[in-house]
Amino acid sequence: MGFVLTDFRPLSPRFRVSQGAALDWLAAAHERAEAGNAQDSVPSDFGSRLRLLLRRFGCSPEKIGHRGSCLEDFTHQDWERMRLFSPQYSAAGAPLSERNRVFQDAALQAFDQWYPADGDDAQGSSERAERAPSELIHVTCTGYLAPSAAQLSASTRGWLKETRVTHAYHMGCYAAVPAIRLAAAALSLPQELGHASRGRVDVAHTEFCTLHFRPERHEPEQLVVQSLFADGLIRYSVLRGEDFPAGGNGMEILAIREEQVDASSESMTWVPEESGMAMTLARDVPEKISRSLESYLVRLFAQVGLDYATEKSQTVFAVHPGGPRIIDGVLETLGLEEAQVKWSRKVLFERGNLSSATLPHIWWEILQDKTVSSGVRVVSLAFGPGLTIAGCLLKKRGVAE
Amino acid sequence: MGFVLTDFRPLSPRFRVSQGAALDWLAAAHERAEAGNAQDSVPSDFGSRLRLLLRRFGCSPEKIGHRGSCLEDFTHQDWERMRLFSPQYSAAGAPLSERNRVFQDAALQAFDQWYPADGDDAQGSSERAERAPSELIHVTCTGYLAPSAAQLSASTRGWLKETRVTHAYHMGCYAAVPAIRLAAAALSLPQELGHASRGRVDVAHTEFCTLHFRPERHEPEQLVVQSLFADGLIRYSVLRGEDFPAGGNGMEILAIREEQVDASSESMTWVPEESGMAMTLARDVPEKISRSLESYLVRLFAQVGLDYATEKSQTVFAVHPGGPRIIDGVLETLGLEEAQVKWSRKVLFERGNLSSATLPHIWWEILQDKTVSSGVRVVSLAFGPGLTIAGCLLKKRGVAE
Repeated sequence: MGFVLTDFRPLSPRFRVSQGAALDWLAAAHERAEAGNAQDSVPSDFGSRLRLLLRRFGCSPEKIGHRGSCLEDFTHQDWERMRLFSPQYSAAGAPLSERNRVFQDAALQAFDQWYPADGDDAQGSSERAERAPSELIHVTCTGYLAPSAAQLSASTRGWLKETRVTHAYHMGCYAAVPAIRLAAAALSLPQELGHASRGRVDVAHTEFCTLHFRPERHEPEQLVVQSLFADGLIRYSVLRGEDFPAGGNGMEILAIREEQVDASSESMTWVPEESGMAMTLARDVPEKISRSLESYLVRLFAQVGLDYATEKSQTVFAVHPGGPRIIDGVLETLGLEEAQVKWSRKVLFERGNLSSATLPHIWWEILQDKTVSSGVRVVSLAFGPGLTIAGCLLKKRGVAE
Repeated sequence: MGFVLTDFRPLSPRFRVSQGAALDWLAAAHERAEAGNAQDSVPSDFGSRLRLLLRRFGCSPEKIGHRGSCLEDFTHQDWERMRLFSPQYSAAGAPLSERNRVFQDAALQAFDQWYPADGDDAQGSSERAERAPSELIHVTCTGYLAPSAAQLSASTRGWLKETRVTHAYHMGCYAAVPAIRLAAAALSLPQELGHASRGRVDVAHTEFCTLHFRPERHEPEQLVVQSLFADGLIRYSVLRGEDFPAGGNGMEILAIREEQVDASSESMTWVPEESGMAMTLARDVPEKISRSLESYLVRLFAQVGLDYATEKSQTVFAVHPGGPRIIDGVLETLGLEEAQVKWSRKVLFERGNLSSATLPHIWWEILQDKTVSSGVRVVSLAFGPGLTIAGCLLKKRGVAE
């Protein structure tokens, strides 16, 4: 057994809104933004047309039940007391620097929940050192500050020499795959090249996607995006197999593979701009991914000497739910049963698209699910700018109590 | 021999300005920005006071001779034809999205120089595959776009399946150290966890620091920053020792160590804002680094069973020249000879502070220098937000022809 993902700690964002209410909020925010932009007054039917567009292009409450956010803004329509969407700002909402401030506060809060302070400082450094990871990989594509919340959290806990911090930033929704690759690689490094290489690597995802909503952009693709994304927070540990306790509950890493899909580099973009990160998303993304998927999986399984066609039906699929159409497309292209992807549907329904934090939530659901036996293989697939298909083959170890 | 850095390819930015001319340009740009900001007209002595401040706080032409930039803007004072500092923009200059566009174009040009297109496409995929790195680590803290120039360069060359791309972003001036750690770790990963793990890892630094100058910020620390940074472009390869050709010219990696310095998390910050990346830099940074440096080096050397005090005098020092005061501080704190840090002075003088690209330029200078024998050990030290001290111990292999 090489490396195991274990000790998953998902957090719930501070605020939670039903998808129905979220779509209402979006319609109201877009209408206000349009009024702020327009030279003339807003056409009287703008609101009703936008609601129609949201119903047509937005993700419906049947597919996403609730979404979480670190922002109270989405829970009410009292615009004067909005943090990012108050009338003091332009139609696009607050500038990037204000969104950064919210990001940093919320990310620090997440680290505080993941690494509670010592009850008694007098217990001193030995206990602290025990809990310090040898490496802390901070994964995000929604906020870039230096020092990062990961650096600050390590230094305020006194983990100055024992914990090195790595930023795995700006790799979009697929970043959990390079992150676990970096973690396994860190644990493979000869001791002298990384003083902490024999310890525990923690991976912490802080994705505050809802900070980047842009109510002044009414294009259908923006309505798709704004109806899908939510905040996602999860951390987990990566251990060498020999350090994983017998009978423990975790995911063994069997194989990792990252590829780009041919001739589709402009299908999806993600760039920091003046009023937050900006995304574009072409309609043909699901199709382009579908086309490459089966041959990708054949290569992934072959890395560990397995035949995809033989194994497929006994394998569980953790599919990054970019949106409901992505799961549908994967299901249809690969000819899977609905039961094989149900944890992806569940995470999408309960939380929305959490960018890079989504796959780890799906892994956690599969680990929690007692109907999935120890030893079952889990294919994981995520997609993002490039276009990139990043995936891995995992094997469930142990069953949660 | 574990891992070797080799095949360094520094590039010169398209434009190059003498430090004297650069300081003049800064004074003029600040004066214009102040006129744009001020309610009243600019005090008549503003320009002369600013020149005085620049002389006092800015880096002098004795320490930096020239700096390079991808922008023509710094070579003239015809403001109408400036790309980022034209009168059409606010006093701060162009918004972040425009700076991003310049970044992406310039980064793509750098990759085109590093990986020239095949003369004849008919030669086909076998030649392409031979030149494709197994992993491409893109290092930058000055531009975050997805897809990145690294992803686009790989996909347009047909390196879709054979090259995985990792973004090592937002780790400031010290990022070359985590980058070579990630490269060595990638080459240590078991084959099935990264299909390319037995190949060549390329590290490409594209730092376009000059895109983020902010002429409306006149504080002394901003004048320091604006007088130091320049654009830096370099790529190199990391190979497993057994793949390094006998008699080749490269740097063997002996040890790597990354630490944070106690209680100094706000000494240096770096954050994307509306008008570019914003930096703060406290005056006590050199002092805080100096305080921790000797004990850090003792730990670094001990990782490979070496005694720092014994080895110090025969060791060459590659010190990230954050500014001249950083080199002076290290020299004084450690009691080094000027000759031990001369390559750091040379790179600072010839190119300025190139953020994460600086250390690799110093390594390249040491490799080029025939007076440095094969077998000489090279301590490398870099500093950045955290505060972080990131360093490594290298050993020169072979002497350049």
